[in-house]
Amino acid sequence: MTTATPTTRRLAYLGPTGTFTEQALLTRPEAAGAELVPCPTVPAALDLVRSGEVGAAMVAIESSVEGAVSVTLDELATGEPLVILGEVEVPVAFYLVAPAGTAMADVRRVGAHPHAAAQVRRWLAEHLPGAEVVDAASNAASAADLAAGTASWDAAIAAPLSAERHGLATLAAGIADNPDAVTRFVLVGRPGATPARTGADKTSLVVFPGEDRPGLLLEILESFALRGVNLVRIESRPTGEGLGRYCFSIDAEGHLDEARVAETLMSLHRTSAEVRFLGSYPRAGGPGGPGDTAGRTTAAPAGHTDEDFDAARAWLEQLRASR
Amino acid sequence: MTTATPTTRRLAYLGPTGTFTEQALLTRPEAAGAELVPCPTVPAALDLVRSGEVGAAMVAIESSVEGAVSVTLDELATGEPLVILGEVEVPVAFYLVAPAGTAMADVRRVGAHPHAAAQVRRWLAEHLPGAEVVDAASNAASAADLAAGTASWDAAIAAPLSAERHGLATLAAGIADNPDAVTRFVLVGRPGATPARTGADKTSLVVFPGEDRPGLLLEILESFALRGVNLVRIESRPTGEGLGRYCFSIDAEGHLDEARVAETLMSLHRTSAEVRFLGSYPRAGGPGGPGDTAGRTTAAPAGHTDEDFDAARAWLEQLRASR
Amino acid sequence: MTTATPTTRRLAYLGPTGTFTEQALLTRPEAAGAELVPCPTVPAALDLVRSGEVGAAMVAIESSVEGAVSVTLDELATGEPLVILGEVEVPVAFYLVAPAGTAMADVRRVGAHPHAAAQVRRWLAEHLPGAEVVDAASNAASAADLAAGTASWDAAIAAPLSAERHGLATLAAGIADNPDAVTRFVLVGRPGATPARTGADKTSLVVFPGEDRPGLLLEILESFALRGVNLVRIESRPTGEGLGRYCFSIDAEGHLDEARVAETLMSLHRTSAEVRFLGSYPRAGGPGGPGDTAGRTTAAPAGHTDEDFDAARAWLEQLRASR
Amino acid sequence: MTTATPTTRRLAYLGPTGTFTEQALLTRPEAAGAELVPCPTVPAALDLVRSGEVGAAMVAIESSVEGAVSVTLDELATGEPLVILGEVEVPVAFYLVAPAGTAMADVRRVGAHPHAAAQVRRWLAEHLPGAEVVDAASNAASAADLAAGTASWDAAIAAPLSAERHGLATLAAGIADNPDAVTRFVLVGRPGATPARTGADKTSLVVFPGEDRPGLLLEILESFALRGVNLVRIESRPTGEGLGRYCFSIDAEGHLDEARVAETLMSLHRTSAEVRFLGSYPRAGGPGGPGDTAGRTTAAPAGHTDEDFDAARAWLEQLRASR
Repeated sequence: MTTATPTTRRLAYLGPTGTFTEQALLTRPEAAGAELVPCPTVPAALDLVRSGEVGAAMVAIESSVEGAVSVTLDELATGEPLVILGEVEVPVAFYLVAPAGTAMADVRRVGAHPHAAAQVRRWLAEHLPGAEVVDAASNAASAADLAAGTASWDAAIAAPLSAERHGLATLAAGIADNPDAVTRFVLVGRPGATPARTGADKTSLVVFPGEDRPGLLLEILESFALRGVNLVRIESRPTGEGLGRYCFSIDAEGHLDEARVAETLMSLHRTSAEVRFLGSYPRAGGPGGPGDTAGRTTAAPAGHTDEDFDAARAWLEQLRASR
Repeated sequence: MTTATPTTRRLAYLGPTGTFTEQALLTRPEAAGAELVPCPTVPAALDLVRSGEVGAAMVAIESSVEGAVSVTLDELATGEPLVILGEVEVPVAFYLVAPAGTAMADVRRVGAHPHAAAQVRRWLAEHLPGAEVVDAASNAASAADLAAGTASWDAAIAAPLSAERHGLATLAAGIADNPDAVTRFVLVGRPGATPARTGADKTSLVVFPGEDRPGLLLEILESFALRGVNLVRIESRPTGEGLGRYCFSIDAEGHLDEARVAETLMSLHRTSAEVRFLGSYPRAGGPGGPGDTAGRTTAAPAGHTDEDFDAARAWLEQLRASR
Repeated sequence: MTTATPTTRRLAYLGPTGTFTEQALLTRPEAAGAELVPCPTVPAALDLVRSGEVGAAMVAIESSVEGAVSVTLDELATGEPLVILGEVEVPVAFYLVAPAGTAMADVRRVGAHPHAAAQVRRWLAEHLPGAEVVDAASNAASAADLAAGTASWDAAIAAPLSAERHGLATLAAGIADNPDAVTRFVLVGRPGATPARTGADKTSLVVFPGEDRPGLLLEILESFALRGVNLVRIESRPTGEGLGRYCFSIDAEGHLDEARVAETLMSLHRTSAEVRFLGSYPRAGGPGGPGDTAGRTTAAPAGHTDEDFDAARAWLEQLRASR
Repeated sequence: MTTATPTTRRLAYLGPTGTFTEQALLTRPEAAGAELVPCPTVPAALDLVRSGEVGAAMVAIESSVEGAVSVTLDELATGEPLVILGEVEVPVAFYLVAPAGTAMADVRRVGAHPHAAAQVRRWLAEHLPGAEVVDAASNAASAADLAAGTASWDAAIAAPLSAERHGLATLAAGIADNPDAVTRFVLVGRPGATPARTGADKTSLVVFPGEDRPGLLLEILESFALRGVNLVRIESRPTGEGLGRYCFSIDAEGHLDEARVAETLMSLHRTSAEVRFLGSYPRAGGPGGPGDTAGRTTAAPAGHTDEDFDAARAWLEQLRASR
């Protein structure tokens, strides 16, 4: 990510232009001056990373409304290894947009991706009770078609960036029924570019237990808890070997360079069939970053700091040396 | 489910006709003589149950390849309460079908839903290397259009039932690349019809923790483990209140009428914001049922049988009486 | 304990007169007007309870310096059942006593039980550096012999009550090297007199696991923790069946009449070979009692109160009723 | 233990001669040719070790009937550090002994330490119903006085070695009411002589939690369990700071040189106020030792062997190197 080779100057994202994913990508410093490459699917974006055609790709991984983005989890869990370089949280803000000069009273048909339509249903019922909702192919297409004059609608439900890209006017902003909806995106690259520890970090991994026995998930959770590592998210995903066979996709607090995280990872490695490391990276809203949020540091609790680990190691070595 | 009122003689399913979901529904005794109502979406099918227009609905809840069916989990977790009356596991078997008289050598274009196409990719590459794959709207539509003569393809990738429904001939059976792929369906009804205990049962529930603190999921898991109740599946789902706020969708072994299950449910009720009971029902492959599989009973382990609970209760009451 | 039959008017204690045990007994309301019967050993005192010759017996169970009193734990764990009716904590205060008219300068030889001598060693070294310490048979005998004129010493290390009983003068009070040393005594009776719940209670029990397997003690501890019951003390004691075979003597917060305690007891009863209930009784220093200490109530934590249990039971019964 | 300096040729034990402790000491290879020094108390024996006057001392630490030997636990837990070099299990076999020529019918009075008398009570009632039991000062003294002609009894209850030492004849052997009673002894030395790993080892330690909070003991137990280290024994002992303040004396399977033991020790060191290491040593009855007992090896379970730890470490280092 930090070198200046041509491929790293290209960044992929789930397109088309104007999506929330592009919006997430634009918040990253890597995006400045880079060529942004829209991709039709998450696997397509990640394949460009694996093949080296782009330096990294931005993809959605979790929605506060819809939950985990399975395709992203599954793509990261299998195939050529990839790592997460950073995360971005984007509020799911919808705008009602239209060509300049359009008034609310002129809007008879509204173009919207069905998913977006579902999230503004109450607003439309109140403010445009008589308007018909027409299916658009994507959040971005609803605006693009309108701007191109090829749409059958008068106004579109669109992401803020999409409106801006297509030179449309905003009739209403912030019209999502759930104003707190957020989507979390991750910037994914090839191994070898783990960001430095910041004090407010996350580590992502996938654990393949390798056998199905009662108490297994409990043991995994205890492996974290006993070493003072909080879990942020845990998802069970099928391994494809049959119903009841799962792997666990996990986000934990802390960084690969912390002793508590290292010991936890090694513990899981010893007691499961496979552990796939998916990166350590600054958490969204951490100190000094965009959206800096008080209290979102991930400092190790008492007994689990690097100093505690070092002191314990020194004590043990002295015990062994004096035997 | 057991009465003979008109509504209970109608059963909904995720259509159109010929889907794996209909196939799952047809394995149920309730389906004999009932009117089967195809629905365009899972919410639509479940709304018919809630409104009383049908007695129950069959919907997919989990795929061994794709994981949980989020829309089903979320529909069950919120809104007017529903309960699971039974589950059916259906192998994801794909057939290559065509009008009678078509030979393999005649097939130049194959119609398939993209999802299905992905699951037979290797088979097609080997057996029909020159054929073009054309997108169909659904597994059922690929066959329906072919039978109706409106398709642009010579053969279709279809579910077995779909071939049968449309009077098409089978050119090849069992062509899925992963021959073990299975989808699990649940028959969902209104509360008030919990099936009797069979000795091989599952209980489904959703736990809303109500606060986010480290160790919470661990406590939930221990609540089950300590009472001898094995977990079969656990999924975290967003509550919609923001990133990091989850509820847990759980399938456990055992039946509401067992003391170990009752004590676990009450324990969760005491220590979480809300517990939604989603039913106790015979597990697929249980004794005496279709697909009876040895060893799939869910007998309570030593110390956790109803007799153990009764003896402990009697002992306690004697202690209290003699005080 | 509350009836007026002759036997309950007699109370045993580990004698002779003047011991800390008698001192503990005298703090109890039952002692007022009762005949106090000194016994040579703990088993002798408890046998009088079992045979009905006394209503109860006061015996030491734990010292903050020496630890558990094994003979008391073992006597309670086996044989005819007994229960604890209450506990008393007595500071281990030693006095230097002598016949009236004796001055510090006169003291050349000090009579002391070796145990007591060990606890005042530093004081003696500082204040009576030249005095010789002579072994006495007990804390009480050191004073009794001195009072009777049969001792070979000029002063005695004695319990406060002992000095008072024998009309000796106090040369120095509070001379223990560890001024915080405390002994805990329990009043033991026959089952059938469990004191009422006070809100600051303890429950004592012995768990015989019945098999030796890894993780067993951990399960016992989790049985308490998961139901919001704090442990105050846990001791492993041999069962006599061989090295490595233990039972566990436990003091927990709470009362038999609390639902969280009842469920924990039943859980242990189900999963172990035997549970012996040793009584629920007000904890020393509880509200309103002697030595009332702020913050020593044993209120159930959120989620584990009787109201929480009742609400969970009502919810479960409604679930079962509506099935 | 392995050098040939004069002090290491002297070994202390809890005397007098003829005790079970001396018997335990004589089973050790170190005892061959060494000067054996009887001591009146456990602290006296251990003080000789601390001062360097003897190379090691044999003391009792646990009885299958009486439980832990508190004085030994407390002496090891405090003061100048000592370590356990090995353990010996001795069956508590009592003999009835008398001068040569004495017949059973001649025995009217039996000398016995009260503790020993209690353990042969049933045998005496059956075989010498008319005999009077007279208190002797120790198991060894009962025989010594008899041999010296200074005893008021005709026969003595004695340890086997004691009979042999005093040239007494055995009237009856193996007369203990509990034929399985065993006492466990430990050979204690100064740090610096930890025996090599044998594959059937124990590690002893004391954990001072440093604060009193619910769940603390549970955390300690989980620290062992999660790393595949079985506990053999755990005792709570008072710290002397007041009722309710305990440290934990622990015997675990495994050796300081094993990674799973090292990680557990470091974990406890991080999360408690103090951990005192009391040695790693071959367990009694281990392979190749006296009393070799099948199945008493202490091999690490799958996932917790040194190879597993090494592989996990290599994996982690590769992760960190490739970042």
